[in-house]
Amino acid sequence: MVSVLEERNFPVETLRLFASGRSEGNLIPFRGSPVRIERLTPDSFSRDIDLLFLSAGTAISREYAPIAAKLGIFVVDNSSCWRMEEAVPLVVPEVNSDALRLEKKIIANPNCSTIQMVCALYPLHLRARIKRIIVSTYQAVSGAGQKAIVELESQIKDLAEGNPVKPVVFPHQIAHNLIPQIDVFLENGYTKEEMKMVNETRKIMGDDSLMITATCVRVPVYIGHSEVVTVDFSEKISAAEATEILKSAPGISVIDDPDRSLYPLPILAAGRDEVFVGRIRKDLSCENGISFWVVSDNLRKGAALNAVQIGESLLQKKYLSCDGF
Amino acid sequence: MVSVLEERNFPVETLRLFASGRSEGNLIPFRGSPVRIERLTPDSFSRDIDLLFLSAGTAISREYAPIAAKLGIFVVDNSSCWRMEEAVPLVVPEVNSDALRLEKKIIANPNCSTIQMVCALYPLHLRARIKRIIVSTYQAVSGAGQKAIVELESQIKDLAEGNPVKPVVFPHQIAHNLIPQIDVFLENGYTKEEMKMVNETRKIMGDDSLMITATCVRVPVYIGHSEVVTVDFSEKISAAEATEILKSAPGISVIDDPDRSLYPLPILAAGRDEVFVGRIRKDLSCENGISFWVVSDNLRKGAALNAVQIGESLLQKKYLSCDGF
Repeated sequence: MVSVLEERNFPVETLRLFASGRSEGNLIPFRGSPVRIERLTPDSFSRDIDLLFLSAGTAISREYAPIAAKLGIFVVDNSSCWRMEEAVPLVVPEVNSDALRLEKKIIANPNCSTIQMVCALYPLHLRARIKRIIVSTYQAVSGAGQKAIVELESQIKDLAEGNPVKPVVFPHQIAHNLIPQIDVFLENGYTKEEMKMVNETRKIMGDDSLMITATCVRVPVYIGHSEVVTVDFSEKISAAEATEILKSAPGISVIDDPDRSLYPLPILAAGRDEVFVGRIRKDLSCENGISFWVVSDNLRKGAALNAVQIGESLLQKKYLSCDGF
Repeated sequence: MVSVLEERNFPVETLRLFASGRSEGNLIPFRGSPVRIERLTPDSFSRDIDLLFLSAGTAISREYAPIAAKLGIFVVDNSSCWRMEEAVPLVVPEVNSDALRLEKKIIANPNCSTIQMVCALYPLHLRARIKRIIVSTYQAVSGAGQKAIVELESQIKDLAEGNPVKPVVFPHQIAHNLIPQIDVFLENGYTKEEMKMVNETRKIMGDDSLMITATCVRVPVYIGHSEVVTVDFSEKISAAEATEILKSAPGISVIDDPDRSLYPLPILAAGRDEVFVGRIRKDLSCENGISFWVVSDNLRKGAALNAVQIGESLLQKKYLSCDGF
């Protein structure tokens, strides 16, 4: 988050960093100077803060977002805590920055898998109205945090050395394996992650009639979520037209040259800001269907970047005042 | 193939093994005794051979299957060469052993991804008639042969040691990555592998009206192909009923206990004969839809096992004579 603010020249006058007591006093570099981490308490915030990025899990978000909002601070929250609250805008700037309101201080940053999918779907929806979405995900371990990255690394090492593998972060071995479970299961047999993709997509695209089903699978990849998306449209749309639309869509980069084996790959998306789309083709099973493959860096567009872009939208709308943005 | 013949007590009187000159003279153990590999030539076969398993690529299959068939030998061919020939039965014994005929000597063994999918789909099709199938695959590297296994192993090692990775078998790095291309691309933007799933599924299930679309993705897993399958039925069928049907279906093992994080996993399917199905649930995007996750050992049910089971079907039909089977 701090790197993204710096990279994008976000007009930060003063950066303050808060964390638990464990990290208090640690230094994080920002624009060449170290910033000392303060301990987060209910009295941490003051009215002179304009914008707060919250990324510390749902419990912290539930407690601290209202404290900041009451002080008039805009809060961009990365957790799932506020996303489905009716009064809270759930924003992907390329899609629905118009959901932002001066008086709605808490703004939710969507689920990582959802963000990259709606970036690709929304421009197509505007042209041919989507009826149904079927998505299968291939999600990188970094979506489960730094500990999950270490778990994959150490499992690969343990297996190479013939040592037993002890899953901690994931419910099963993830090295050389796949786990068709992300987050916990709900009553209807879907995981929370899958239902986030269903419900958040409807909210961001502003269309509760969208029929959506999702299967979310963890794969032994470090960074970059990938998705197979199959879409039924109300109106006829060719793969060629869909490709042209996506080529000029904000935040999207089309990589689609099968003859040269060019299509999006997680290792190439890692560290990049774009949502990469390829394998755009007619769905053979449906009259007005299109299928594609979408890959993006889950830590950037799927998290920190989208949050900072929400901040940029607040600046563009002059909800945040700042010289020279 | 040889291990599977031995494991299943296939009533082999004499086993002969053929290969190129490069392997001539090598010894392969069968039932405790070494069998010497002979060099394959157009004169290798004789009328006293009852059954030939061919697994050496399309060029060899195209040349040698007719030579054997002309001598009255049943040929179970693992390549894609004969699969879509109208006169050639394409057989998954659990589904369509009735396609076998005494006079049809060449029999095709289907594509690995197709076999495991139709095993799960066919019993559901019988109950509620399938209209549309949308499948995304997560395919293990062993599907591309022994060299591909070595390539994944050595890439993981090279990356750990900071060495550059040089893809040979696959068009891109496969370690810590995904490749949404299996086999070559066709005019319509689909790969050959994807079109095999479309065309072979129709032929095996005996229903050319089935609407099917597939996206095939290579994942950094050694053994075990996994698939997300979403199915639209003509008739209403609940997830509970689909589960009951699959539980009693031949060759299928249902692992579906979300509360205990139990579902099929490639590392658990490796080395096993069954087709494992789990995550069976209502498709939220379609009135009469079901979605599930299916995993099987691509080297066994996806290849050698299914071929040997075709041989067993020939025995059961008395097309092959043998004492005591």
